[in-house]
Amino acid sequence: MPPLVRVQNFGVSADGFGAGEGQSLDHPFGHADPGALLGWAVATAHWVNRSEPGGSYGLDDYFTRDFARNIGAEIMGRNKFGPQRGPWQDHSWEGWWGAEPPFRTPVFVLTHHPRPSITLGQTTFHFLDATPREALDRALEAADGQDVRIGGGVHTVREFLDADLIDTMHVSVAPVELGSGERLWSSPDELTDRFHLERVPSASGVTHHLFWRR
Amino acid sequence: MPPLVRVQNFGVSADGFGAGEGQSLDHPFGHADPGALLGWAVATAHWVNRSEPGGSYGLDDYFTRDFARNIGAEIMGRNKFGPQRGPWQDHSWEGWWGAEPPFRTPVFVLTHHPRPSITLGQTTFHFLDATPREALDRALEAADGQDVRIGGGVHTVREFLDADLIDTMHVSVAPVELGSGERLWSSPDELTDRFHLERVPSASGVTHHLFWRR
Repeated sequence: MPPLVRVQNFGVSADGFGAGEGQSLDHPFGHADPGALLGWAVATAHWVNRSEPGGSYGLDDYFTRDFARNIGAEIMGRNKFGPQRGPWQDHSWEGWWGAEPPFRTPVFVLTHHPRPSITLGQTTFHFLDATPREALDRALEAADGQDVRIGGGVHTVREFLDADLIDTMHVSVAPVELGSGERLWSSPDELTDRFHLERVPSASGVTHHLFWRR
Repeated sequence: MPPLVRVQNFGVSADGFGAGEGQSLDHPFGHADPGALLGWAVATAHWVNRSEPGGSYGLDDYFTRDFARNIGAEIMGRNKFGPQRGPWQDHSWEGWWGAEPPFRTPVFVLTHHPRPSITLGQTTFHFLDATPREALDRALEAADGQDVRIGGGVHTVREFLDADLIDTMHVSVAPVELGSGERLWSSPDELTDRFHLERVPSASGVTHHLFWRR
């Protein structure tokens, strides 16, 4: 099976926002409550940041346990990597995730301000000023036959959708409205000309949206 | 996370039968139509016996792609391995699966008639006359920290349920009635004293039943 380009466990509001306004160090999702968007994932046994035993093995866990399966590299936007904008003031910021980030593969951070690579635990962050296609070629090479995850945020997912580089996409839609912020879509039906779409309601309250290429 | 004992992609009829009556070389599921029980899985991209590209990446595919994830060994009953009953007439029967069986781990076949181990491709079949607990200890050792799949058939799954050795179980319930054969349950609610149960209807017509220990 050739490698796929996958979006996994990406959470948006009922009105399509993946983050609110005013993103900052203290509020990485801006005015959005991250629990409302991603609480379904945090409650599962395979939640990527889980440090204690426990959690559910129901439907939602199939989505969190698929996060790392056959992934060989991630591409993320600079705004997912950290709250700073513009040129780096210094290089002390090394991401939100501490000494062992949950990616455990090469991660390519798209930025107009490249800086030296950082290795933390099993993850190495590389900083690239590149088009989506160029970044994907680098990530596919690093993934060595495995799939590439497009990690977000919204702007980065949109760029890869616009360049038609995404093969499969899992988006959880939460029953909250945000009104403003970073918007993935007005409606998921915008994508059904290019993608199959299956909607799967979960007991946790979110509806999983599964897209794959027609 | 300690290793789990998992049942995966096990298909039964609406009235709880995993196979019909009269199992034989030509009819491994007896009078049951295997397509009615497992057609949902065959249609997915990650169906374990898929040899051509294609298939769906919707909800059902999350279940087939989880079949091998973190599995280090399987335990199956002798009736899953082949249609012969009683002492082996000869050792020419090497399973249904050809030169590269889809397990790709050690497989422990429970039988009162042990025979020498067989290696086919990446799978080695070992034949054990053992209790479920003894077989599980052997399989856990072989799995080396990964999970153990209980592969069926019905009698074997029931034995492991009766011994309370199963941690998680995924059973697909198809909208057909069989009336007789090998019965897993009269109702899935029989298990809810010990297990959480989440029912997830799929567009393919089956309802996925997800169990995990309370």
